[in-house]
Amino acid sequence: MKTILILGAGKSSTFLIDYLADSCEQKDRRLLLADIEISQAEAKLQGKKNTEARYFNSEDPQSRRELIQEADLVISMLPAFMHPLVARDCLELGKHFFSASYESDAMREMKKEIEEKGLFFLNECGLDPGIDHMSAMKIIDSAHEKGEEILSFKSYCGGLLAPESEDNPWKYKFTWNPRNVVLAGQGTSRYIEKGELKFIPYHQLFSRTEEFQFPGLGKYEGYPNRDSLSYRKVYGLENIPTLLRGTLRRSGFCKAWNIFVLLGMTDDSFQMELPEGSTYRHFLNAFLPWSETLSVEEKLAEIIPNLDFETFEKLQWLGFFEARKLPKCSGSPAQILQAILEKDWSLSREDKDMIVMRHVFEIQTAKGVKKLHSSLAYIGQDSVYTAMAKTVGLPLAIAVDMFLEEKIKLSGLHIPVLKEIYEPILTALEDFGIQFEEYEE
Amino acid sequence: MKTILILGAGKSSTFLIDYLADSCEQKDRRLLLADIEISQAEAKLQGKKNTEARYFNSEDPQSRRELIQEADLVISMLPAFMHPLVARDCLELGKHFFSASYESDAMREMKKEIEEKGLFFLNECGLDPGIDHMSAMKIIDSAHEKGEEILSFKSYCGGLLAPESEDNPWKYKFTWNPRNVVLAGQGTSRYIEKGELKFIPYHQLFSRTEEFQFPGLGKYEGYPNRDSLSYRKVYGLENIPTLLRGTLRRSGFCKAWNIFVLLGMTDDSFQMELPEGSTYRHFLNAFLPWSETLSVEEKLAEIIPNLDFETFEKLQWLGFFEARKLPKCSGSPAQILQAILEKDWSLSREDKDMIVMRHVFEIQTAKGVKKLHSSLAYIGQDSVYTAMAKTVGLPLAIAVDMFLEEKIKLSGLHIPVLKEIYEPILTALEDFGIQFEEYEE
Repeated sequence: MKTILILGAGKSSTFLIDYLADSCEQKDRRLLLADIEISQAEAKLQGKKNTEARYFNSEDPQSRRELIQEADLVISMLPAFMHPLVARDCLELGKHFFSASYESDAMREMKKEIEEKGLFFLNECGLDPGIDHMSAMKIIDSAHEKGEEILSFKSYCGGLLAPESEDNPWKYKFTWNPRNVVLAGQGTSRYIEKGELKFIPYHQLFSRTEEFQFPGLGKYEGYPNRDSLSYRKVYGLENIPTLLRGTLRRSGFCKAWNIFVLLGMTDDSFQMELPEGSTYRHFLNAFLPWSETLSVEEKLAEIIPNLDFETFEKLQWLGFFEARKLPKCSGSPAQILQAILEKDWSLSREDKDMIVMRHVFEIQTAKGVKKLHSSLAYIGQDSVYTAMAKTVGLPLAIAVDMFLEEKIKLSGLHIPVLKEIYEPILTALEDFGIQFEEYEE
Repeated sequence: MKTILILGAGKSSTFLIDYLADSCEQKDRRLLLADIEISQAEAKLQGKKNTEARYFNSEDPQSRRELIQEADLVISMLPAFMHPLVARDCLELGKHFFSASYESDAMREMKKEIEEKGLFFLNECGLDPGIDHMSAMKIIDSAHEKGEEILSFKSYCGGLLAPESEDNPWKYKFTWNPRNVVLAGQGTSRYIEKGELKFIPYHQLFSRTEEFQFPGLGKYEGYPNRDSLSYRKVYGLENIPTLLRGTLRRSGFCKAWNIFVLLGMTDDSFQMELPEGSTYRHFLNAFLPWSETLSVEEKLAEIIPNLDFETFEKLQWLGFFEARKLPKCSGSPAQILQAILEKDWSLSREDKDMIVMRHVFEIQTAKGVKKLHSSLAYIGQDSVYTAMAKTVGLPLAIAVDMFLEEKIKLSGLHIPVLKEIYEPILTALEDFGIQFEEYEE
């Protein structure tokens, strides 16, 4: 009997746990679910057969190793900085390792040892990274098998609201880690277009968007992610003239978000100490020049080129022009902004989130250049059973299941770009309605 | 006989060395000048009486301590990160310490020990920091003695070109460390105006300038330095409604420099790898969107709001629109930009630099609010005997001289904001023509 260990029973583990706990009822395996809140772990397991909740404190290496020793295979759903520590334990104790997070340099340093010990370590097997790799590689491999050449590959993904839950002017709420949303895009974004290397600094990023139409859903816009260039190697497209990966938002979001960026409100590098009792309006005014005669609204219009009513309204809806008291007066600008947004951008119980992904390929075929769109739009059930948790957790759960079933027979350090990994997982995801629709232009 | 040790015989030490070496010919003291290039140290001492050049490798702590052991007083002209190490040696060996650099946190941690040992450690005794503190504190103390209140203090300083040497459209060349010029202003600038805390992110900084007229010299513009708020404590002006410190540039400079900032060309956080043989035009184009139809010039005009001919001409003069080969194709954007600028912004032998400083005070007097301007404009001899080297080196040399003469009788950790320090130094600087002119508005 094989033993699966999941470290972390938080919100993002829900579907992963359900899938693997259910599998223990039918298959010869057991599941240990470890969390610092053992009651939370117990609740998620619902007393299913061959499952067991365990107390686990990630800061105690001794008990962590004892727990890992009991398992054959470990899934880390801990914060990203913990993965290399868990992976190192797995390596020493001879256990397989799975995560939905980025393959880090620390992980890559273990590559040779992983191979020598015949272990299987799989990272980036969630949504983004995860489903993006798998769905893209399916098209790339298929083209290469036909002897076709990929001329251009642009890929965008966003964690958004289902249209029916878009009840504010931003058409946005936090469906994932708010801090990551506030800091998104910082640094300089890099990609390649028609053979030209392109670099976009943070303060230009949200004004350099591309527009997309999703049938039945309306307009979205995408901005380039920080590093698209490294994906040339990941996808085996070293000489591709155009490669860009980006993030999708609802049309109009980026123009308004750009105001926060341009004013410096997303800066996380220093601490502000505003007087107690400061208001939203004070916070906004701190990023505008002093003026004897102009109002906050007028100064904003002077600093922000082409400020239109739709954009102004988004700030107004959040209360930035009001004497409303700030939820916190000290912290970095990004922390204060996050506290403001969390008040108005939190999902209510019934809100549904939505995952949208769009690959656009230009492929040189024997008959000419083909433009291929491949899209996923996936809507969640409610604010607990989110599309985000499902699309992150299911690919990982399926990968673990397939590995234990020996439908994936590999060893070494991997991300799901190999056909023998992505093909069975994509097929299994289709049973859950996670399916890409393709059309040619 | 007292022994002075100067660590570092580089360009910025010239006047410091001359002044103190001359003093050894008349006074009962000797000077050791230590540098990794002993021949350079020898050349600068010109065989003056009671002076001696020494070989010194700053990376060898043992020989550094042996050298310091020989001295009564040490002046560090080494790179800033070395100061705390030298100061720590001085503390252990019971030697006084002088520098023209910022008093660091590492230095402040030694404060109590410095006091206990009765040593004198003086930092920030150059130009900026240095002369700025001294000239400002003279006015502040004078107002306070008269029972007047300082309502507003804005202070700007710039290392620029003498008007007669302004032979390019930027009216600028490097008269100091080029890397610091390229990276100047990064982070978020903070100041207070009419009681309102103000924050300006880097990408707004060069468009939020104030204009100044210098009689006989023409128009200059200033942008706020990174942290003005901490100077409220330094100057004993904790409750001042307006305090701003800034950097001066020639009128029009900031608008053009802002293009580099807005495009991301001053980013030092990642490495670009452009193909060998890339041109200035390629470098510029890497920061502009791809377009099938628009030229580099047209794309620039789309990205940069209100691009005027004077600004365009500055970029053109540097060769950015030409197929001229880049001096280097890999490095951070800031490093590549610096290499470009060093080709065209280097001082020729006869070029003269100029230091400009301007304090503007608003003071509540018995008769009403007085607006007081205090200005320094100081022109160098040539590209070796620069105004920058002189205004940095002389205050430090004078401070050392006065301390040895017991005209400054202090112990502890200081910057030159005390009357007993700044008064004799400012008086001595006047003999060199380094003198502020005041006028009331």
